[in-house]
Amino acid sequence: MEQDVRFMALALELAQAARGQTSPNPLVGAVIVREGQVVGMGAHLKAGEPHAEVHALRMAGEKAKDATLYVTLEPCSHHGRTPPCAEAVVAAGISRAVVAVLDPNPLVAGRGIALMRSAGVDVTAGVCEQEALRLNEVFFHYIQTKRPFVTVKTASTLDGKIATATGHSRWITGEAARGEVHELRRMNDAILVGVGTVLADNPELTARLHGEKYGRQPVRVVLDSALRTPLTARIVQDRSVPTWIFATEKSPVEKREALEAEGVTVITLDGPLLVDEVLQRLGERGITSLLVEGGAEVNGSFLRARAIQKVVSYLSLKLVGGSQAPTPFGGTGFAAMGEAVSLTDIRIEQVDGQDIRIVGYPKWTAAPLEKE
Amino acid sequence: MEQDVRFMALALELAQAARGQTSPNPLVGAVIVREGQVVGMGAHLKAGEPHAEVHALRMAGEKAKDATLYVTLEPCSHHGRTPPCAEAVVAAGISRAVVAVLDPNPLVAGRGIALMRSAGVDVTAGVCEQEALRLNEVFFHYIQTKRPFVTVKTASTLDGKIATATGHSRWITGEAARGEVHELRRMNDAILVGVGTVLADNPELTARLHGEKYGRQPVRVVLDSALRTPLTARIVQDRSVPTWIFATEKSPVEKREALEAEGVTVITLDGPLLVDEVLQRLGERGITSLLVEGGAEVNGSFLRARAIQKVVSYLSLKLVGGSQAPTPFGGTGFAAMGEAVSLTDIRIEQVDGQDIRIVGYPKWTAAPLEKE
Repeated sequence: MEQDVRFMALALELAQAARGQTSPNPLVGAVIVREGQVVGMGAHLKAGEPHAEVHALRMAGEKAKDATLYVTLEPCSHHGRTPPCAEAVVAAGISRAVVAVLDPNPLVAGRGIALMRSAGVDVTAGVCEQEALRLNEVFFHYIQTKRPFVTVKTASTLDGKIATATGHSRWITGEAARGEVHELRRMNDAILVGVGTVLADNPELTARLHGEKYGRQPVRVVLDSALRTPLTARIVQDRSVPTWIFATEKSPVEKREALEAEGVTVITLDGPLLVDEVLQRLGERGITSLLVEGGAEVNGSFLRARAIQKVVSYLSLKLVGGSQAPTPFGGTGFAAMGEAVSLTDIRIEQVDGQDIRIVGYPKWTAAPLEKE
Repeated sequence: MEQDVRFMALALELAQAARGQTSPNPLVGAVIVREGQVVGMGAHLKAGEPHAEVHALRMAGEKAKDATLYVTLEPCSHHGRTPPCAEAVVAAGISRAVVAVLDPNPLVAGRGIALMRSAGVDVTAGVCEQEALRLNEVFFHYIQTKRPFVTVKTASTLDGKIATATGHSRWITGEAARGEVHELRRMNDAILVGVGTVLADNPELTARLHGEKYGRQPVRVVLDSALRTPLTARIVQDRSVPTWIFATEKSPVEKREALEAEGVTVITLDGPLLVDEVLQRLGERGITSLLVEGGAEVNGSFLRARAIQKVVSYLSLKLVGGSQAPTPFGGTGFAAMGEAVSLTDIRIEQVDGQDIRIVGYPKWTAAPLEKE
């Protein structure tokens, strides 16, 4: 068992190495061990290319016979762009397979394991399961809910302010924390803000390094019921990155056409912009991960809708005061302190002398409140 | 030098052991070392009893001759309740004295060292100075400003709320953090709240352990311009601990008399209750340390007055939302983010799974804003 954890940890590391390049596929790592020696290693590197198990089996060659396979995700059992890995595992003569987590798709979960078992492979499942789930937190959530995995990023002072009472917000955090946010953007398929942020800050909403666009750019999504986004806004004028604006059916048609003429995609919803409906539409358009960088109102509506999977909070170790200064989660909020949502799997790190980063996962226990 | 730091660290630990029992005197520790061996150790334990150096010299006896003395505070040079320590050090034959920090009283600072030097003792000053200043942060501040050392304690959710939008605040933090707050109260000469807190929560404002009063009780101080504190309030009815209420001259005389009849001390100020004037009055009454547990308005007015020496923030790792929910520092606040006050010497610790404690010291750079 100790050995199992050790080799699975290695497989998880191999998987991790391809972070950001496998979409829409999950990160997967595989290790093959024979008589205590590593004889094969692999990771899934890019959609359309071989799965992790196949790379590892190739490296092991003849030595895969009677060896143990460690793989972070259940080997597939279906013929997709590549032949089923479970069959390849059996064909290579693997005698034992250790699997971290089942396939997230309920329609096929357990089939790869059943296939291997029926061929006489000794299968152990669930080793390092939590780590494997976190490794592909986006992928698992998307497959199971058809909605993007939502990360809300906030930056506030130690006394909970995201701006001063007069609206100044530059800068709350230091350079190091602001740099990390661009990295967070790059890791997500889309960024979402409310029109209030567009009007107040006219942000570019791109992933930049030293001021220049860098790497994959997320789609920019704006919640803008009445289409108040100006045609002169940076997110409209800069056509190098797609901008999608959610509006209601009642928004002015001329403005919609004008925005579309500038290359913006306007998505109209019948009725108010409910968080879950927005997420469903984004999911349909292939957005698997969404970074919400809303103002207080947008973040607050995601909170009330219980539609947050992860929170990344930057706290600047300073005090600014002000009873009218906005806080990271506004809106109605919960009425009783007992309704507040707790975060689990907390990681707290000092970013530099002035800022700390707190990452956690909301532990939702009750139903969404959005429609109350 | 390495040896100096090592023995001074020991002296600081000895001093620390008497925390909470030396008031109004500072914590002081002393170590006497001869040929690399500790031959004497002492700490100041209680006002009126011998100073740390005297205890250490007694323990060392004859071995003090030609030895080195490590002491966390400059030996005194004046005849007070005890004879001057600097003379005792010389008389014992100490050949070298290492001092962490000078006497905070500018009228006598340096005199103890000068006295020893003029008698031929080799003196090194400033070893572990920062640690020695923090050790007696309250004492030093009080001596130099004649005002209490102000610690503001806050408890908020990760999204900066000290209550929900409807005012619920029980409980933000868990039991462990709430237990720590009673310990904080016990360490301070007085606790201060605004009348809003009295009216909203009717708190007892005592230091308790498992629900029972425990140890030294701080004086309860309320800022209450118009004397709205009800005669039935717990802080009035419980006469076992003093309650002082600050009011303006315009507050109703009958209410003042009624409160005084219940044993409350009413302190009236001419004009509005300015933070600095309140602190001056508290200092005059011998309050050396003040724990501010105000609501948002009281904390905010201490912030604007730049009258905070230390911040102890409990953050509960949960989100409650609500744009109307109060935050730890309300009031006017600073207008520009650049005016926000940074904290230094930050310590961050997880109290339990759900709460973290952040302790820091505001680095005031500009003049107070209270009278703007």
